[in-house]
Amino acid sequence: MSDIVPAKNPPMLQVADAQAIVRQYVRPLPPEPMPLTSAALGHVLAADVVSDLDMPPYHKAMMDGYAVRCADLPSGKGTLRVIEEIPAGQVPRRTVEAGQASRIMTGAPIPPGADAVILIERTRLSENGCVEIEDRPPKPGQNILPQGAEMKCGDTVLPTGTVLRPQEFGVLATVGRTTVLAHPSPRVAILSTGDELVEPDQRPQGGQIRNSNGALLVALVSRAGGTPRYLGIARDDPACLRPMICDGLKAPVLLLSGGVSAGKLDLVPSMLREAGVVAHFHKVEMKPGKPVFFGTYPRPGGGGEPALVFGLPGNPVSVLACFELFVRPVLRRLRGHADPGPHYISAVLTEDFAYRTDRPTYHPAHLEWTPAGWRVRPVPWIGSADLRALTQANALVLFPPGDHRHRAGQVFETLSLE
Amino acid sequence: MSDIVPAKNPPMLQVADAQAIVRQYVRPLPPEPMPLTSAALGHVLAADVVSDLDMPPYHKAMMDGYAVRCADLPSGKGTLRVIEEIPAGQVPRRTVEAGQASRIMTGAPIPPGADAVILIERTRLSENGCVEIEDRPPKPGQNILPQGAEMKCGDTVLPTGTVLRPQEFGVLATVGRTTVLAHPSPRVAILSTGDELVEPDQRPQGGQIRNSNGALLVALVSRAGGTPRYLGIARDDPACLRPMICDGLKAPVLLLSGGVSAGKLDLVPSMLREAGVVAHFHKVEMKPGKPVFFGTYPRPGGGGEPALVFGLPGNPVSVLACFELFVRPVLRRLRGHADPGPHYISAVLTEDFAYRTDRPTYHPAHLEWTPAGWRVRPVPWIGSADLRALTQANALVLFPPGDHRHRAGQVFETLSLE
Repeated sequence: MSDIVPAKNPPMLQVADAQAIVRQYVRPLPPEPMPLTSAALGHVLAADVVSDLDMPPYHKAMMDGYAVRCADLPSGKGTLRVIEEIPAGQVPRRTVEAGQASRIMTGAPIPPGADAVILIERTRLSENGCVEIEDRPPKPGQNILPQGAEMKCGDTVLPTGTVLRPQEFGVLATVGRTTVLAHPSPRVAILSTGDELVEPDQRPQGGQIRNSNGALLVALVSRAGGTPRYLGIARDDPACLRPMICDGLKAPVLLLSGGVSAGKLDLVPSMLREAGVVAHFHKVEMKPGKPVFFGTYPRPGGGGEPALVFGLPGNPVSVLACFELFVRPVLRRLRGHADPGPHYISAVLTEDFAYRTDRPTYHPAHLEWTPAGWRVRPVPWIGSADLRALTQANALVLFPPGDHRHRAGQVFETLSLE
Repeated sequence: MSDIVPAKNPPMLQVADAQAIVRQYVRPLPPEPMPLTSAALGHVLAADVVSDLDMPPYHKAMMDGYAVRCADLPSGKGTLRVIEEIPAGQVPRRTVEAGQASRIMTGAPIPPGADAVILIERTRLSENGCVEIEDRPPKPGQNILPQGAEMKCGDTVLPTGTVLRPQEFGVLATVGRTTVLAHPSPRVAILSTGDELVEPDQRPQGGQIRNSNGALLVALVSRAGGTPRYLGIARDDPACLRPMICDGLKAPVLLLSGGVSAGKLDLVPSMLREAGVVAHFHKVEMKPGKPVFFGTYPRPGGGGEPALVFGLPGNPVSVLACFELFVRPVLRRLRGHADPGPHYISAVLTEDFAYRTDRPTYHPAHLEWTPAGWRVRPVPWIGSADLRALTQANALVLFPPGDHRHRAGQVFETLSLE
């Protein structure tokens, strides 16, 4: 048909295809021994954890009361001679024989001969060293947790790939593990570029702005489980950029912001190539963030995994969108997560929203769970420099290219920023 | 009716009522200056942040191209003399007059006289210092972000109560704030009690088990934004407990585990009272966790807020349930969060589940978001000592007391543990 105009340029790379390219180059970092401190929270085990004992290590009283023989209490009522008191942490010294009982505390080992525990509330200690019991007829095993019921010696209690949460900390302590083998936090070098930038503690002069991308990336990297190292601001000058890029390439991941779009001074891709970085893509069909660059830097001599290098655009909303779509999944994979994301949530638009865009657009939005399901509302936004809009947002909602009047009730894929 | 038996004891405190009691005693910690490092992530602002400048600080080019006067290009086509090149970070020196244009980079200030930016892709630089333009007729303001469009000097850009996320870090950097006033992380002292306990690096002997609650609580406190200080294991002996409790009461929050149920050796509540702790409740209608104790310790001399003291039961699943229901909201409130939770999610049971219990029960469960809504599946669980069950869980599902055959498709309130 005559109104189909051939594209001037080859079709641009789609987000999903760009993500697939990145994935090819990412392997989990080599595991390291890690002590079981708060810093290990959220890390991924690189080896199975096996129990070195039964838990409980003995038949254990689950309540305070009396360890008895069920055969002595066919009706639930009776008077038994108390032969011993067994606090938690002590080993019973005596066997419970017919007509006898031992006072027992929660957590203590059941004495030989006994097969049930009667709750303390159902008993009365008499003066003569006997206990009077008035309860329903006991069943064997009542209020007793059998040895090994939670775990047996030799059980794999936490398999490789387990993410360490508080409950896993408790299980590790139970089986005596104070150090684990886990994938470490990736070190991430952060380099801001641009002659117009000054550090946040400076007062911008004519034509200058403060560098917000440094602080933004430090926080994004930290939240995603990386260890950020901020290298500072590089001027748009090869002599300044070159040594800072070299420094940044020592880390497993290097993030640059600025200097990747088509302008005359956009030096970053060429300087990266000069430094030995192999470019895999430069431009993705998305808004904001189109000029995003990805490359890898093979280690000289071939030792170790290549560094992963992202050239992010200079505007902060572009930085955030590219980080969430490309970098956060990389950091999760380096940390050993099997499923690095990102995950989209289908959410219902809360209000009509007319929107025109030439590319798939990740628009700042407020995402909320309601009893009726997920709801998303775009927040006012004036473009990729408008970071303030993101302070009203907790998500990015994906709008398709075109001139649309989206309707309340329509469903859109949404990326949570939490 | 004759089968109604009067309760032996007064009705037990319900979870919601116990939470309301705790809330009465919690105020946000006094704010402190906090540098804008990764450690500030998740903290809550205690003062408004006001911008010290307009953003952008000048009319700013949003694209690379040429700054022009629309009046010169009524048809969108024309040839203009290039009078200057304005990189980002530099101040234009010349006014654009009729028939003139200035080459301009993304982020640079628009020169006086110009009222639009033509994209570089729509232009061709000719040999004689002129630029040939072929575009649609430009509109005034095209590709220009006006001064102050994102924020104006004096605007409150982040109000009191804002939670610091990466985007807030970027905004703070933009307005030159490298330190903020925020509520600090509460220090939380953690004390495990019980003669049966040995530290995780020890081999348990007869009647002993390793202390899992210390590691569990350190991790729970860290994840909830507190700063844990593990005090160690106290024997069930006043001479051992007394000084450790005194030490723990120096912190804003003291968590003990063990020693709160009805047994003879359950010393914790009495030792706390002896130390000056005022008891507010001891026992809540819940499973696991019924014997939970809460008290406050007025500071000697009346200076400062009282310490908040929780006596948690000794079994680790009870510890986790009580922490999520009572302690995590306290830590959030101390950190200045307006809405400390906990929040329940209504989720659909995935399978039939027969369950008998005498109290509202928080059962370990797997909670999952699906396109059809939230789904919850109870995981196998043998009771309050069975921490291993929680490694299969990411939530607690609340089952009512009674002997029930719950059906797949029924909706239950669920507490996420993420």
